[in-house]
Amino acid sequence: MSEASGETLISEGDDVLLFLDPKRTYLVRARPGERFHTHRGFIQLDDVLGKRFGDKVSTNLGFHFFLLKPNIYDYLGKASRATQIVYLKDNALIVAYSGVGPGSRVIEAGTGSGALTSVLAHYVRPGGRVYSYDVRAEFQEKARRNLVRAGVSEFVELKVGDAVEGFAERGVDAVVLDLATPWLVVPRAHEALRGGGRFVSFSPTVEQVVKTVSALNDDFVGVETVECISRRFKVKEGETRPETLMVGHTGYITHARKVFKE
Amino acid sequence: MSEASGETLISEGDDVLLFLDPKRTYLVRARPGERFHTHRGFIQLDDVLGKRFGDKVSTNLGFHFFLLKPNIYDYLGKASRATQIVYLKDNALIVAYSGVGPGSRVIEAGTGSGALTSVLAHYVRPGGRVYSYDVRAEFQEKARRNLVRAGVSEFVELKVGDAVEGFAERGVDAVVLDLATPWLVVPRAHEALRGGGRFVSFSPTVEQVVKTVSALNDDFVGVETVECISRRFKVKEGETRPETLMVGHTGYITHARKVFKE
Amino acid sequence: MSEASGETLISEGDDVLLFLDPKRTYLVRARPGERFHTHRGFIQLDDVLGKRFGDKVSTNLGFHFFLLKPNIYDYLGKASRATQIVYLKDNALIVAYSGVGPGSRVIEAGTGSGALTSVLAHYVRPGGRVYSYDVRAEFQEKARRNLVRAGVSEFVELKVGDAVEGFAERGVDAVVLDLATPWLVVPRAHEALRGGGRFVSFSPTVEQVVKTVSALNDDFVGVETVECISRRFKVKEGETRPETLMVGHTGYITHARKVFKE
Amino acid sequence: MSEASGETLISEGDDVLLFLDPKRTYLVRARPGERFHTHRGFIQLDDVLGKRFGDKVSTNLGFHFFLLKPNIYDYLGKASRATQIVYLKDNALIVAYSGVGPGSRVIEAGTGSGALTSVLAHYVRPGGRVYSYDVRAEFQEKARRNLVRAGVSEFVELKVGDAVEGFAERGVDAVVLDLATPWLVVPRAHEALRGGGRFVSFSPTVEQVVKTVSALNDDFVGVETVECISRRFKVKEGETRPETLMVGHTGYITHARKVFKE
Repeated sequence: MSEASGETLISEGDDVLLFLDPKRTYLVRARPGERFHTHRGFIQLDDVLGKRFGDKVSTNLGFHFFLLKPNIYDYLGKASRATQIVYLKDNALIVAYSGVGPGSRVIEAGTGSGALTSVLAHYVRPGGRVYSYDVRAEFQEKARRNLVRAGVSEFVELKVGDAVEGFAERGVDAVVLDLATPWLVVPRAHEALRGGGRFVSFSPTVEQVVKTVSALNDDFVGVETVECISRRFKVKEGETRPETLMVGHTGYITHARKVFKE
Repeated sequence: MSEASGETLISEGDDVLLFLDPKRTYLVRARPGERFHTHRGFIQLDDVLGKRFGDKVSTNLGFHFFLLKPNIYDYLGKASRATQIVYLKDNALIVAYSGVGPGSRVIEAGTGSGALTSVLAHYVRPGGRVYSYDVRAEFQEKARRNLVRAGVSEFVELKVGDAVEGFAERGVDAVVLDLATPWLVVPRAHEALRGGGRFVSFSPTVEQVVKTVSALNDDFVGVETVECISRRFKVKEGETRPETLMVGHTGYITHARKVFKE
Repeated sequence: MSEASGETLISEGDDVLLFLDPKRTYLVRARPGERFHTHRGFIQLDDVLGKRFGDKVSTNLGFHFFLLKPNIYDYLGKASRATQIVYLKDNALIVAYSGVGPGSRVIEAGTGSGALTSVLAHYVRPGGRVYSYDVRAEFQEKARRNLVRAGVSEFVELKVGDAVEGFAERGVDAVVLDLATPWLVVPRAHEALRGGGRFVSFSPTVEQVVKTVSALNDDFVGVETVECISRRFKVKEGETRPETLMVGHTGYITHARKVFKE
Repeated sequence: MSEASGETLISEGDDVLLFLDPKRTYLVRARPGERFHTHRGFIQLDDVLGKRFGDKVSTNLGFHFFLLKPNIYDYLGKASRATQIVYLKDNALIVAYSGVGPGSRVIEAGTGSGALTSVLAHYVRPGGRVYSYDVRAEFQEKARRNLVRAGVSEFVELKVGDAVEGFAERGVDAVVLDLATPWLVVPRAHEALRGGGRFVSFSPTVEQVVKTVSALNDDFVGVETVECISRRFKVKEGETRPETLMVGHTGYITHARKVFKE
């Protein structure tokens, strides 16, 4: 990128989010000589170079796309708007309950596609580190590509391993779980956390929550489970109302703090 | 603080969250020779020094408090648990929608007691900056004390001024508003933002939202309003259920991205 | 129908709800010699006659359908499960807030397809009466057929007319509105209601609610607006959780009581 | 009561709801020569006689109360507005899911204070009947007084007995449970119901719901669990918003239809 009059100009290799409307966005890398095809015609990527983020560009069919600089949630959500929204609220709350920020050391299990990993990595930069475990090596390959694309791979150590067997790290600030059986990992999280460190677990079902809370009650305090319901509001003079269809449930977030009860 | 065997030992001047249960916590500074009085007796602060975070300490009446290292939300919420929870969800979503992270430059108006200011400052560390405006100089004095206490004041510039008159900064990554008349500030936010930068506004009433969205539709894209309902789940084998009383509404969050529509 | 050993046997002309699962139900009239075609093969209606409600019957392809006696909500909801659920909660609350019961006299506007009309008629039987207004005569034809089918037409007077012009009845127990501009009808509702009679209005948008409440504040007391969010809970050992997708909004219900403030 | 010009005039022995605002209402019986004391002074009940429902009356201190004719929910809710609202939504949905209406025969267990009993009795009038079971004879005494006061006692048979032991009735249209262990009563409900009859159970906890649904899956179809969240909307031009505090949970409603599966 280069700067001019306070604005960043798009240069070769920059990631650009092409925005038609909230449901139709594309993530592309600016490269000279290439064309990017949309359902509204193609964009000559040479037309993108040298423009400001925030400017618009036309397809050969005359449709306008705005050029946006992707943020961490754009990288995660580019495939699906519905998914983006859901994950934004849960990821945002998981980050908040974990207490992590720049410089934090945090363990995550499992890695999955690396969505939450990316968000955690975004916030622990530049001095922190995410240790992300998954038993499925093939998932981590996908996650690695997503982390590289989002520009946060240098802050993450991807580790193939079963969280139930324990973590290599000690004294971490937070352990964040998105696993089918989080309750089995509670003692392992306790080992790895520093005193007062945060445990956060995301689970879709009530039974998972009940077992996890039961396991936490021994060696943690401040155990709390919440669900966050995010509701879009359609705002237009004379037609203002909550949207008809919504995602009613994604999962429960359980969080707690490690103590030494001995 | 000093470290030993992976754990941080509490030393003079450290902030400590004394934790009896989620509704009864106290934030104190560890000082030799002092006593801290709780509703369960007093704690000799000498007893706290040299302990690990996560350890417990007894009052003269034999009640145990755990010693926790406060995180940014603990600083905000120490006065009231109900407030803490409410603000956590809204603050977490505002941060997520703003797209800010380490290194971001963000304008906030109004400062209020500095709660959201602290959270933003926490996440833009170490290279970023929060420019926080408020017309009420006396509020900023209170905010300044809270920022100092939370250890994030060096990342914030408190400015006395009316957001309706405009901001001094240009090319910022995000503008975050918690004002009675956010719609009047929309053109000022557009001036101050970089192309593609994020606008986020928090408002309790529908009328505020309708006016703000109407103002945004001219020069922003991706305009969306959401409300986040956070519901605590009481988890105990045989008694699991959402809690009876809840905070049903705090406010709507409206967010959008600056573009150049000319 | 005929009765034997406490059970009703299905006889010619009875309405029967064929039930495969909650999303696949059919409403048929039992007639000898006819076949009813489902997506799982056809049912010989002679097989239905003489069976008990609650028994099952096989299609020619070997699928089992249970034979249920339709209730008023089955008549309304037979086209769509999603619609059924939504309307059930709103209809149920409208009935409750209206205070109607056996013997009540109630005005409704507009008739629409007669769904709420049927429910009101169901509850005012046998001595009460529903006066249902709609400006669109063609809608009322459809409504008439639905009322006849549901067996409640004798308790309803369908009237072609604009509610804004006023109602012919006086001293009614309740006025129930599902109109685009309910606030214009508030004075007409006041004329038609007995002292203390109930006003209930269902509206999807906030602007409708604000105008209606403003109109009500002059001559009514106990003005209240609620929204009811109904959430299905998927219950299965080990997989219990709220359903992922839900209807987030249908409308707001505003209710009030007529008084003489003069 | 006596009627004049379409309005009912209040006469000796009528129940009257004295209405100051939604949170301050009193239920009194109009008797000549008596005084009724409120927190805003006393009302001379002679002043009430001969007035219309909807009229107002003054206390000796000059405060105005409106005179309303109580409906069935006013009888239930007169003690507490919060309770009234909660119960209204749940009672309304229980009635809707039960399918009962004028003429229905319905079993209820347990009677409790008779609140739901009153509502069911209200809707089955004049030809139907509520059989209400409770093991606690002393509760039924209280319920009997409430039913008499609400004017619906002639439609109810109060029975002292444990629902787990079974019901005396057969072929009823609905069985409605508000019990600590509803799953134990499922086979008894099946015995008592007509084919296709409705089972409805109200339970606060997830564990109750899981056990009840598991018991229902054998001999019922259309098993569904819902929770209804009712949210008050504060409506005033410029200040419109959901109310801050709300009742987040009362209970889950599980409903199903009896079939003969054998």
